[in-house]
Parts: sequence; C-alpha cells; structure tokens
Amino acid sequence: YGTKVVKKELARWLVMGLIGVITALVACLIDVMVQLTSKMKYDVIAQYVDECVMGYCMAEPFLLWVALNAGIVLFGGILVAYVEPVSAGSGIPQIKCYLNGVLIPHVVRLKTLVCKVVGVICAVAGGLIVGKEGPMIHSGAVVAAGISQGRTDAFHLDFRIFEYFRSDHEKRDFVSAGAAAGVSAAFGAPVGGVLFSLEEGASFWNQALTWRIFFASMISSFTLNIVQSYISGHPWELSSPGLFNFGKFENISYSGLEIPIFILMGIIGGLLGALFNHINYSLSMYRKKYIDRKWMRVVEVMLVAGVSGAIAFVIIFFNNDCEPTRSDFESSAVQFFCVDGQYSATAAVLFQTPEESVKHLFHDQAGTYKPITLALFCIATFFLACWTYGLSIPSGLFIPGLLIGAIWGRLFGMCLQLLFQQLMSSWADPGKYSLIGASAQLGGIVRMTISLTVIIMEASGNITFGLPIMIVLMIAKWVGDIFNEGIYDMHVHLQEVPILGWEPPDMSSNISAAEVMSHPVSAFRTVESVGRLVDVLKKETHNGFPVVEDYDPSDDNDSEEIGRSFGTFCGTILRSQLIVLLKMKVFNENDDRIKLLQKLQLKDFRDSYPRFPPIQQIHISSNERDCTVDLRPFMNPAAYTVSDCASFSRVFRLFRALGLRHLIVVNKEHKVIGVVTRKDLSRYRISQHAGKISVSEMPFSHG
Amino acid sequence: YGTKVVKKELARWLVMGLIGVITALVACLIDVMVQLTSKMKYDVIAQYVDECVMGYCMAEPFLLWVALNAGIVLFGGILVAYVEPVSAGSGIPQIKCYLNGVLIPHVVRLKTLVCKVVGVICAVAGGLIVGKEGPMIHSGAVVAAGISQGRTDAFHLDFRIFEYFRSDHEKRDFVSAGAAAGVSAAFGAPVGGVLFSLEEGASFWNQALTWRIFFASMISSFTLNIVQSYISGHPWELSSPGLFNFGKFENISYSGLEIPIFILMGIIGGLLGALFNHINYSLSMYRKKYIDRKWMRVVEVMLVAGVSGAIAFVIIFFNNDCEPTRSDFESSAVQFFCVDGQYSATAAVLFQTPEESVKHLFHDQAGTYKPITLALFCIATFFLACWTYGLSIPSGLFIPGLLIGAIWGRLFGMCLQLLFQQLMSSWADPGKYSLIGASAQLGGIVRMTISLTVIIMEASGNITFGLPIMIVLMIAKWVGDIFNEGIYDMHVHLQEVPILGWEPPDMSSNISAAEVMSHPVSAFRTVESVGRLVDVLKKETHNGFPVVEDYDPSDDNDSEEIGRSFGTFCGTILRSQLIVLLKMKVFNENDDRIKLLQKLQLKDFRDSYPRFPPIQQIHISSNERDCTVDLRPFMNPAAYTVSDCASFSRVFRLFRALGLRHLIVVNKEHKVIGVVTRKDLSRYRISQHAGKISVSEMPFSHG
Repeated sequence: YGTKVVKKELARWLVMGLIGVITALVACLIDVMVQLTSKMKYDVIAQYVDECVMGYCMAEPFLLWVALNAGIVLFGGILVAYVEPVSAGSGIPQIKCYLNGVLIPHVVRLKTLVCKVVGVICAVAGGLIVGKEGPMIHSGAVVAAGISQGRTDAFHLDFRIFEYFRSDHEKRDFVSAGAAAGVSAAFGAPVGGVLFSLEEGASFWNQALTWRIFFASMISSFTLNIVQSYISGHPWELSSPGLFNFGKFENISYSGLEIPIFILMGIIGGLLGALFNHINYSLSMYRKKYIDRKWMRVVEVMLVAGVSGAIAFVIIFFNNDCEPTRSDFESSAVQFFCVDGQYSATAAVLFQTPEESVKHLFHDQAGTYKPITLALFCIATFFLACWTYGLSIPSGLFIPGLLIGAIWGRLFGMCLQLLFQQLMSSWADPGKYSLIGASAQLGGIVRMTISLTVIIMEASGNITFGLPIMIVLMIAKWVGDIFNEGIYDMHVHLQEVPILGWEPPDMSSNISAAEVMSHPVSAFRTVESVGRLVDVLKKETHNGFPVVEDYDPSDDNDSEEIGRSFGTFCGTILRSQLIVLLKMKVFNENDDRIKLLQKLQLKDFRDSYPRFPPIQQIHISSNERDCTVDLRPFMNPAAYTVSDCASFSRVFRLFRALGLRHLIVVNKEHKVIGVVTRKDLSRYRISQHAGKISVSEMPFSHG
Repeated sequence: YGTKVVKKELARWLVMGLIGVITALVACLIDVMVQLTSKMKYDVIAQYVDECVMGYCMAEPFLLWVALNAGIVLFGGILVAYVEPVSAGSGIPQIKCYLNGVLIPHVVRLKTLVCKVVGVICAVAGGLIVGKEGPMIHSGAVVAAGISQGRTDAFHLDFRIFEYFRSDHEKRDFVSAGAAAGVSAAFGAPVGGVLFSLEEGASFWNQALTWRIFFASMISSFTLNIVQSYISGHPWELSSPGLFNFGKFENISYSGLEIPIFILMGIIGGLLGALFNHINYSLSMYRKKYIDRKWMRVVEVMLVAGVSGAIAFVIIFFNNDCEPTRSDFESSAVQFFCVDGQYSATAAVLFQTPEESVKHLFHDQAGTYKPITLALFCIATFFLACWTYGLSIPSGLFIPGLLIGAIWGRLFGMCLQLLFQQLMSSWADPGKYSLIGASAQLGGIVRMTISLTVIIMEASGNITFGLPIMIVLMIAKWVGDIFNEGIYDMHVHLQEVPILGWEPPDMSSNISAAEVMSHPVSAFRTVESVGRLVDVLKKETHNGFPVVEDYDPSDDNDSEEIGRSFGTFCGTILRSQLIVLLKMKVFNENDDRIKLLQKLQLKDFRDSYPRFPPIQQIHISSNERDCTVDLRPFMNPAAYTVSDCASFSRVFRLFRALGLRHLIVVNKEHKVIGVVTRKDLSRYRISQHAGKISVSEMPFSHG
C-alpha cells in the first residue's frame, strides 16, 4: 500500500512537470508564430507604403492593410464560430468557473486548445487590439486537463496512464496548475501564476498543492526562458533582461512624495476601467441579442480588424509625427511618410503588435512622442479594445488594458513635467508613469489584486516598484468597484453561470436553508425499481440524489407542500454511478449479480469519466423495468447534510470550503426535506454599492 | 443596516492600516535599539583590544567580551523566564498554532510583546547567533490582536472601539494580517508576508481577506521605509537600494548550465538542515527534561552568550586573517591584531551582529576571506545556532540559517572557482553562491516553500534569481523531508499541541468517525438543571457540548458501552455561553427571568471575550442548584454534525476547511453518539518517510 501512495505522489509531480513543459512550448509556439506572421504582414505593407509615398497611391497600402487584417482574422473567426465557440475571448472567465466548480462544456478539450492557439495567432497578427496572454492561460488549463487524464477523446486515444487522477477533484487541481503555468509562460511570472490560480480559483489553500502548482509554474517559466535564450542567440543565459516580458526596468527610482500622484493615477485608472467595463457590458448585451448567427459573428470580427487597421493608418497619415532617427531604435523604426533620416513616431507605436507598443511606451526615452500622437492613439485604442473583447475570436485583455494605461500614463507624465518643470527633474522618467498608468488601467478593468501586483512586478523585473503598483491597483479597484464589477465577473454573469462568490451575501445569516433549498426532492429508496430510476434520471438534471428509507414515491401528489419529508436519510448517490449500474445491469433479479458485483470495479466508474453516456442511450427493456437495484453498496453513507434551520451563510461556507455541488437538507428527525444546489445558492445576489443594498434574483441557463 | 455594514468594513480597513503602521514602528524600535546597543558593546571591546595589542593583556578584552555578552542576555533571560516564558524563541511555532485554531495561553498579550521586544534586543546585542526577524513577526501578531480588540487587559484599558471584532474568527483574521505585517517589516517583503501568513496559517483562501492582509503588509513596509529613509538621511527616497534587507543584488547573472550546481547546493542545504533539526530536537528534549528550573534557564542563556563571545574571540585570535584595508570597507573594518594598513577579515564577519555578517558575505568582493576563516566560522556558527534556538530568550532562526548557508555557500563558490578556473570565469561571483547557499540552508531548516522564495527575492531586490532560489528551496525541502520535519513543526510537536496538518493522513479513509470520536459524551438536555451544568463544566474541559432531547443522564452507568447514544441531537452550546448564563442567573425559576432575558445582549457574551471566568468563580447556592435553565434560545441549532460512518478524512477536511473545534457525531437516528475534537484528529500521526509508513499516537498536554 505504501509504495502505491509513493507512486501516485511521484506521478503527481511528474504530471506537474509535464504540464509546465508543454504549456511553455505551446506559449513559445504562439509567440513565435505571432511574431513571424505579423512581421510578414507589416513588411508587405511597409514595402507598399515605401513605393507609394513616391507614387502618390496611398489608397493602395490603406486597402491592403485593411484587407490583410480582415483576411487573417477571417480564418480565426470561422474556426471559433463554427468549430468551437467556447474558445472565443480570453478564456479566463471560463477557467474561473471551472475552478469554482462549475463545469462549462468543452472548456478543457483538445479541440478548444487547437482553436484557441490558431485563433489567437490570427487575432494578434490580424491587427486586433488583443494580447496573447489570456489564451495562453486557457491553453495551460487545457494542457493540464489532457495530460492529467492520460487520454484525449478527440483521437479516441487512451494511454491508460494516470488513471487514478480521473476524478473531478484531482482534475481541478491539475487545471489550476495549468492556469498557473500559463500565466508563468505568458508573463514570465511564476509566483504571479500561483497567486493568479489561487485568487481566481482556489477555495481551499493547501500547502502541498500550492507547492506543486508552484513547481509546474516554475518549470514552465524555466522551459520558456531556455527556448527564448536559444531564439535570442544567448543560449542558457537565463538572467538576461530580454527575458522580461515588459522589458527590464532598471535605474529608475521614485520618492515617497510621489505617492499622491500615484493615487491620482489610480483614481483615473479606476474611472476609466469602470467606463471600459460599462461600455463593454452594453456591447456584449447587444451582441448577445442581435448578433446571433455564426456568419454575423465572423463578419463582425472582420469588421473590427478592418477598422483597427484603417484607424491606425489614418492616425499615422494625418498625425505625421516625424522624429530624427536614433541609434536606440532599430527594428521598429519605420520611415513611413517621413523624410529620409527621420522615422515616424506614430508608426512606431501603431505599426506593430500591441505588446510591442507597450514595451516601447515603457522604455522609450523622454521626448520620443508628441502629446497629440499619444492622445489620438489612446482614444482609438480605448474604444477599439472595448469593441474587441467579446468578439468571436480568442483575445487576451491584459495587453489592451496595459496599452491604454501605458499611453495615458506617459501622457500624464509629460503633462506633469510641463507643469512642474523645476520641482520634478528627478521624477521625470515618462516610462515610470507609463508603467504606473498601465497598472492602474489594467487594475481598473480586471480588478485583480495581489496576483496582478506580483505579475507586473515579475514581468517588469523590478521589486522597487512593488509598492506604487500595489497602491494604484488598490485605489483603482476601490474606485472601479463603486460603479461596477470586474470584467471577468461581468462575463461570467453574462454566461448565466451559477458561480459562488468569496463570502456569503451580507444579510444571508437571516435566511435559512429551508428557504433556499429545492423542493420537492427526487429521492431513491435503498432498494429501488429500475423503472423509477430511469424515469427520474430522464426527468431530472441533478447530479446527486438522496437515498432514503421509509419512503413511498406514490405519495408524491402532495409533495409541493412545504415541510413534506421524503424518508429518512441514508446516503447519496451520483447520477454517474446510477448510469454505470444501469448499464452493467446490476439488478437484484439478475442471476449472475454476484459475479457482476465482483467484476464491477472502480475502473468501470473511472473509465467513463468525465463523459458518462446520457440516460437515453441506456437500453432498458420493459421486463427489466420491474427489476430492482440495491443502492446501499454504492451510495455514500457519510455525505454531508445540513439541518433545515442552518443559515444561508453557513450552507454557503460549507459549499465554498468543501467544493460541494449538492447538499441534502434534513429535518430534526433526520428526514430529507430538500436539496441545496449551487444554483439555489447563487440565485440570490445581494449587491452593495456605495452603501445601498439591493437584492436581485439571477437568471440561469439550464444545461 | 446598510450603513452598519459599511462602517464595519471601513473599521476593518482602518484596523489593518493601524496594524501595519504600529508593527513597522515596533520593528524600527527593535532595529534601532539593536544597532545602538551592539555598536556600544563592540566599540568598548575594540577600544580594549587596541590598548591591549600593545600591552599584551589579551585576557582583558576576552573576559570583557564574555562578560558583556553574559550580562546583556541576563536581563533578557530573566524577563523571559520569570515574566513571560511564552515570549521565548521565534514565536513562529506559537503563531502557527494560533492561526491553526489552537489557542496557546498568553501568545497575543501585551506583556508578551514587551518581553519579546526587550528580550530580542538583549539577545542580538548579547552576541547570540540569533536574528530579530522571528520576534518581529510575533510582535506584529500581538499588535494586531491588541488593536483589533480595542483594549488591553494589562492596564485594564477598554477603548470600547471595534467591539464587533471580539470573536475568535475576526481576531484570527487580524492576527494573520499582523504576522504578514511583521514579515513585511522584518524583510521588506510585503508579498512574502502575505504568503507567509497563508502558508503557515490560513485554511480557507478568501480574496477579500487576502487583499486586506496585503494592505496591512504594504502599509507596514511603507512606514518602515519612510522611517529608514529618514534615518539614512535620504528622506522619502523609497527606491534606495539600502532599504533592501539583504542589500540589493545587482549586475550578477547566472546561466542555465549552473542549475546542476544549484541542485547540488540544495541537496547540501537539505542534509545540513536535517542535521541541524535533528541536533536541535535532541537538545530541546534534553532541555525539557533536565533544565526545568527558571534560574537554570537563565544560566544556560548566559552560558551560551559567553561561549559565543569566547569562540568568536578565539577564532579571531588564532586565525588572524589580515587583508589590506580597502576603500569599500568602512564601518566594519576593524584592525584587531593586524598591522597598520590592514584589517582583520575574520573580525569583519565575527565582530558584529549576525545580520551584518550575512550582508558582508553576500556583497564582499571575491578574495575578501581566506577559506580557513570561513570553514572555522561555519562550524562554530552551526553548532552555536543549534544550541541557541530553544533557549529561554527571544530568538529568530532566519538569520542564523541564512548565515550558516551564506558561509558555506561562499566557501563552495571559492572551491568551484579553484576547480574550474577557466570554465567558470563568468560564474565566479562568490556573493551569488553565498545567496544560494543561504537559501538552501534556511530552506533545509524551516522547510517553507513559496513564501520563503518570495521573501528572499524581495529582501534581495532581485527577481532574476527567483528561479534558482526556488530550485534550491524545493530540493532542500525534499531532501530534508526524507529525514525529519521542519524545525517549526518540530517545536509545535514538542509543545504537544493538537495542530492539524494540511491533508488527512494517507490511510485515513479506512478509519470511520466512530473510531476516532470521544466517547462517552457529556450532553445537556434542552432544559437542564443548574446543578448538573455546574458539575459537568467542572469535570470536563471541552469548549462545546451537544444539547439533546430524550436523554436521561442518570442512565450513565453503562455509558462506556460503544454504540450507546445520548439522546436526539438538537444543537450545540459553548462553555462560554453556559458560564455567562450561570453568572447572570438566567434560571427558569427566577421571577425576573423575562427581564433578564431582555437585558441579556450580545454585549454580555462579547465583553467577557476572550477571558471568561472559570466555572469555579461562579457562585451557585445549593438552592439554585435545583433550578433549571432553558438552553434552547441560546444553543446553535444548525451546528455541523457528521454521520458515524463518515471517514476520518472526511471529518478532517470538515475541520480544516471550516476551522471547527468540535463536531458532534450522530447515528442513523440522529442521536448523539460521540464528539470529535481537534485532539482526537491529531492524536494519530501516520508518517511516511522514504516509502515506509508508520502509525504513532501522540502525547498531548492537557490544558
């Protein structure tokens, strides 16, 4: 027995390591492909521009840019709309639901991964204001789910390894590690990755699990760095500043007296973030209502990509901010409409992927951009990013958020410099304000807390700035929370998913379990007829059912009556177990029942995980309907129950802490009187904004 | 109602901020006092040495050093031994227990704080191999407990503020914030502080709480930095590298090819750490048995301090490692027995506090020390530190651990350089190996994981080295765990405290609740006689009791029988509630019972928190013994219960996730058959080392 435990433990570490390596390789693939394709696109356009500046045929590169953008995203849009709609967006809301215990179909399938990877490459290369970070996180989660289960249904491959990890509980642990590895690969932030997965998903902090997640995260960052050190031509040089996602911030400093300025920036970030979320929410509601055909979604994606290209071109054309060429600019210094010996500063930020723009805004020295360029760029980016998130294409929100903030942050720094020229000579670095602005804006949009702080610290390779970053994120979250909630939560609610918050709603201690529970209950007797099992399974969508004694289902005509009980509680049984029992025909009347029972192993329950055949596919003859099944050997006799007078908040804590999906409510006589499910708990949302309290019932999709 | 919630929420943030500020100020006080007193001591000794080098009276400074050390620690030793014994050591094991839900008396009292602060100043200034970091963390916890309760019993002061935080649950949340603020102040590591408090204490990750803890932690680091920026003469210059606790590591790099070297160092750290823990454990067992008088403890402290001074002197005297004076050395360059124009490199590390030695080892350039100096220093430090931890004086273990590792790490780097002179030119920085060695050694001793990684990263101001630090900590923990457990856990077990681990023991799913529960149970009837209440409360030490129906206590002669039940479960009631009821004489036979009930408010239960009078102090006349109390209005009718067939692991998870202290076990008829307490759960320890599994029953102190 001991060696079995050790073996399982080793397998767990091995799987974590594999998750890290493969997630990093997927991230590298995305990264390299995005760079290659966008370089190709921009090279072609630049060539046309160079030709046309002379020949006065500016419409040609313009149309080419628009057409290229639309053409590239067309591919991604089709993939998402027709092949796997769940791969749209950043995937973070979906992962959040998954880790919270709500299973959204297809979220961790191989098909989703493929669509996500190809789609995000198209999205970034197609000139949309999106990042590849969110999709990388989702990819990590899919990789984790796949590896830990040791099989993929897409190719009907079952490697017959890691079979002991085939349970919701184990799989969820691995998926959190995958998400952490994804963050780690996306931002080079292993600690931030762990915190992300805890902040977004965990309900129970477990030291051993956290340590394994950290391992996956670290391996991911290590693998990525090694691959990148080879790509950049300095193999194994892991401390190279070039490996930092935001470029390394060095030799910049701040004074404690700047804190009020940072607080002001935090407020701006919070306000702009709330505005962003508000607009995006309205757009998403509109989209949900009117853009309901697949082709319409694809057309919208193409439209946004085209408009993004067109706006960029127009800004570059009319705001021809030419600066003398400098030695610290190489790759991205494009001449565009400038005379020889000068480059277009506007094109330097617009004529590249959003991620590169962010890096430039962070690190270009003072005086690189004219204020008007930045102002135009800021407005355009804000609205385009708002429009883009929620499109039917994979799209990360981190980079757009950072970009908007980096632009207005830099602008803010330039204004400060103009206003207090004398006083602030030492504070003048615009890159610093750009970083703070980026943090404020992103914080105002996503409302993440400690994990975002650490991610930004790690991605910028700077610990000194931890304090100001924390402050702006804190302020931005406070200000934003006055108006609305974080964008991921918004999109979770748009999907009408019964997700549970961190704490029970405020006044929930006055509500009792009896008031929230579902009633009547479909209970099974300890020895139940096959006919009734099949009928109930077909009628109900629940995952768990109570098993009871002293209960006669034929009395059910008065079952709506409150306080009606359904027999003495004996245990619970899962839908999946019942289906396996029916499929294997473990009926009492069957002559070879003993043999069947011996043959029936954990393996039978495990093999069909996680996709049990629906009850409709189980063939039961009318003779068999009269047979009976003894549920006692299979039921869980020690399932958690709760008294009917327990408060809502008590029930909530039990769900949240133990990750329950259903809980049986019993009365004083230990008789079943109801069932509480996640939907019952999340139905009532008691929201509190600016001192006002409102109670609302949420709609939920059924399925 | 809404404004009340908002007010409480604001108060919560305010308290968090105050905790941060005051913890940082306490830390500053400790810091400044340690520097002043140790500077005075070393100045006096240096003066004598200078005089005696000429006069050949070396015995004088030797005896002076020994006497000064012993004299200074005498004061601290007396304080701890006679005033508050719980303030000895680092306090981390005690905080760990507190956060785990085990209340150790006096841990968060003001008296403890005073003894801790004065004691640690004496300990460091008295030349013991200790750090001030652990005590700073404990101080933070005490500060948090004091502020959040708005009163101190030491001066009988009650500010009548924050009364709504007077409950175990709220207080524990604030204490975790205090511990985080302590780490933040001790190492300048706000993120590390949050992770520390999660890793050591939390059982349930809560986003809002974590965010508040982070706030306290940040305010603490901010306050400390501002005070320190004033002390160092650069007011408000918060990004100064001088603020990093380990000094800022810049311009050092590493290659991926060094990873195997780091792994080797991790193994060494794990082995040495396990050895350290083993020796310390044996010493502590010996101490517990034989050094049982207060004066003996004080004498031992003086002995260790004297020996520490003596050994340092002897090493400096016989290993007179003289180096030419350089410009980068100022304050600590003592001449000692060297000729003019030279300084003693041995004295440079031995003739100062351990913390300063660590910084020197991290940052002194290559060639500063002779290998023999380091080797002698390493051996001496290792055994002295082993002897010191567990003495009756406040003493942190972080700095000793780092110091031992920094010495052998530097030695290791020097050996590597000799061996592979050509190959390793770029890897040659001894400070780097010193840092890695320090991490490995500390990791091998304390076995912390992600929090230690982040603390070291933040304290050294370097993110690049995150990866190697993680690797060595991981390896050191793995290697160390083969032999024994972390030193904090060891000391927790030495105190025989029923602490719960992270996960239920491996084979616990085969053990049922009925097997671990306490039996028989002292249950109360819904209407119970005062006499029986008093008798049971005097006899039993439990904190919670089941309230039942259909139970006759006079049947108890056969109560030992297994399976015997104690009436139908109705709810639970706490000892503290019963004591208040008895004290207020809320008896059914009392004529003014209705008036009493109306007068009886939450306040009466809250005011006596956390120190309820013992039952012996409640005066009950013999007439009153025949009265009865109706427990139904006060009991908790929705207390969690568990079925007798629930598995050990299920019960464990319930305790761990919900922070329970007792759980009623009921049978199928919902009748009480037993109670599970933390002691029952932690009694059986199933340990697994190197594939072997052993089950042992732990001894627990009663009280």
